Amino acid sequence: MRDLDREETYLVDRRGLALELRDLVGTGPVPPAPYPGPHGVLAYGEGWFAARLLSLPEWVEEGTLFLLEGGYDLGEAAAMGLMAETGRAKVVRVGFREGAEVYLAPSPLSPYRYLRFLLLATGEEEALREVDEALLRERRRLTPEVPLEENPAKFLAYTLLERLPLFFSPFFRPLEEAAQSLFARIGKSLSLTPPFSALEFFLTGLEARHEQGDPLAAVLLGGGEAASLAKEILETRVDALAEVPAPEGSRLAQAVALWYRLAWTAYYLALLYGVDPSDQEVLDRLREVS
Amino acid sequence: MRDLDREETYLVDRRGLALELRDLVGTGPVPPAPYPGPHGVLAYGEGWFAARLLSLPEWVEEGTLFLLEGGYDLGEAAAMGLMAETGRAKVVRVGFREGAEVYLAPSPLSPYRYLRFLLLATGEEEALREVDEALLRERRRLTPEVPLEENPAKFLAYTLLERLPLFFSPFFRPLEEAAQSLFARIGKSLSLTPPFSALEFFLTGLEARHEQGDPLAAVLLGGGEAASLAKEILETRVDALAEVPAPEGSRLAQAVALWYRLAWTAYYLALLYGVDPSDQEVLDRLREVS
Repeated sequence: MRDLDREETYLVDRRGLALELRDLVGTGPVPPAPYPGPHGVLAYGEGWFAARLLSLPEWVEEGTLFLLEGGYDLGEAAAMGLMAETGRAKVVRVGFREGAEVYLAPSPLSPYRYLRFLLLATGEEEALREVDEALLRERRRLTPEVPLEENPAKFLAYTLLERLPLFFSPFFRPLEEAAQSLFARIGKSLSLTPPFSALEFFLTGLEARHEQGDPLAAVLLGGGEAASLAKEILETRVDALAEVPAPEGSRLAQAVALWYRLAWTAYYLALLYGVDPSDQEVLDRLREVS
Repeated sequence: MRDLDREETYLVDRRGLALELRDLVGTGPVPPAPYPGPHGVLAYGEGWFAARLLSLPEWVEEGTLFLLEGGYDLGEAAAMGLMAETGRAKVVRVGFREGAEVYLAPSPLSPYRYLRFLLLATGEEEALREVDEALLRERRRLTPEVPLEENPAKFLAYTLLERLPLFFSPFFRPLEEAAQSLFARIGKSLSLTPPFSALEFFLTGLEARHEQGDPLAAVLLGGGEAASLAKEILETRVDALAEVPAPEGSRLAQAVALWYRLAWTAYYLALLYGVDPSDQEVLDRLREVS
């Protein structure tokens, strides 16, 4: 098994995603000034998670409507653009698609940058400061030079190795899909998310195939009563179970800090599988056809 | 391997879910009269899919707010109830929780019944007629007496046997989670859904573990350009790929007809695994603690 505390393990990180991860805080475009409110946001692809983190409406009659275009999803882009343009609100297009007023390059770490842009653009500097502080606190324990026994992201990566992760985050459900995306794009790995009735799914979905198939590793994100019940249900049904409590801070800072922890975990998992954690060229090709 | 065209295979269906499936159309509570508009809906558990199928707002200032309580989700119920009661709209509680004005017993097939109630309660009889006709057309090909070679649900169940289904439904994404729920609750089986950036997930998530783990079976629901691109991407990456085009009809009828097809498929899959497709008692216990 590859050793995350040895330098040669990091040779597969050919384009230095570790540096982008380490230096993430404070990166991304900055709006010239706050945009007039009320604010709305429509988003897809890499912008999706940022839009879910803030509780902005998807539509405003006046003020500013941010259109976060960070994806390849067919048709959705055009439809959202058209919808945005029909209103009286100023439309600000952010992302990597043609016609973007604010350019944001594709990256698996862009969700942070969309969030940062939105917080600055809506005058929420204080909320951003809390998020950034939470990420900087996380970072102290997560970088490659922190050895396994003090590094929760390395530790979690070993737990998930050769297993199928199952993410459950009752305190903020969109984090599950964000985790699934990180593990695919950085970790090059498959993972599972439960449907809306998660506890029922845990009780029923693991019966017929109980004795076969991939060993599952449940990852309970953020704690709470539903996470405790899920733990009780899953304990006897999965191969491994990891609890990742949220750090101190606002609900927003907690969710982003957990996302950042998972990004590092996906990074270490890629190394353990011996694959490059950066984007493959095939993603550029998808972007071209869509 | 068990044979879906032989009677003894059906002995594990001890509580007769096949009958409930066959006779589904037209069941469920009927509102005394349409409720005053505008209409809104808040829903969780078994009511979730019905709420997603109709594009009703989650909040109305006046008129009627339907609160579909078909689940065990902790806290969510109480929070939604409180939120609903703060407005001036009439609140109509539908479901199996205490205090429901309209009772709807728990069942994996209840999503149809919540939908039917909502359509009748909002004066959408014509839309309901289209849905019911689509389901009755589907039924002709899906019941146990229709042999394998003419029965697409039986056929799909054999394709998914001993594989991990991966559902993708670009024309109506909530169908994926509804399918995942059906396969867990009826089929007692695990299945996968992609995150918001599904095509990117297909391109990247199957790399590191390409040669190991469960054989995946992709199920593309409903067709369209994104489904075609997904097919191109997945063809070389999964063990089996099934395309399930939507039948003729309104978008609503198409989505419900596909859901019905998947309910039958989950039923046949349970039989192939030799497990009872009906609810286990453990679900009652979950309902009691939550």
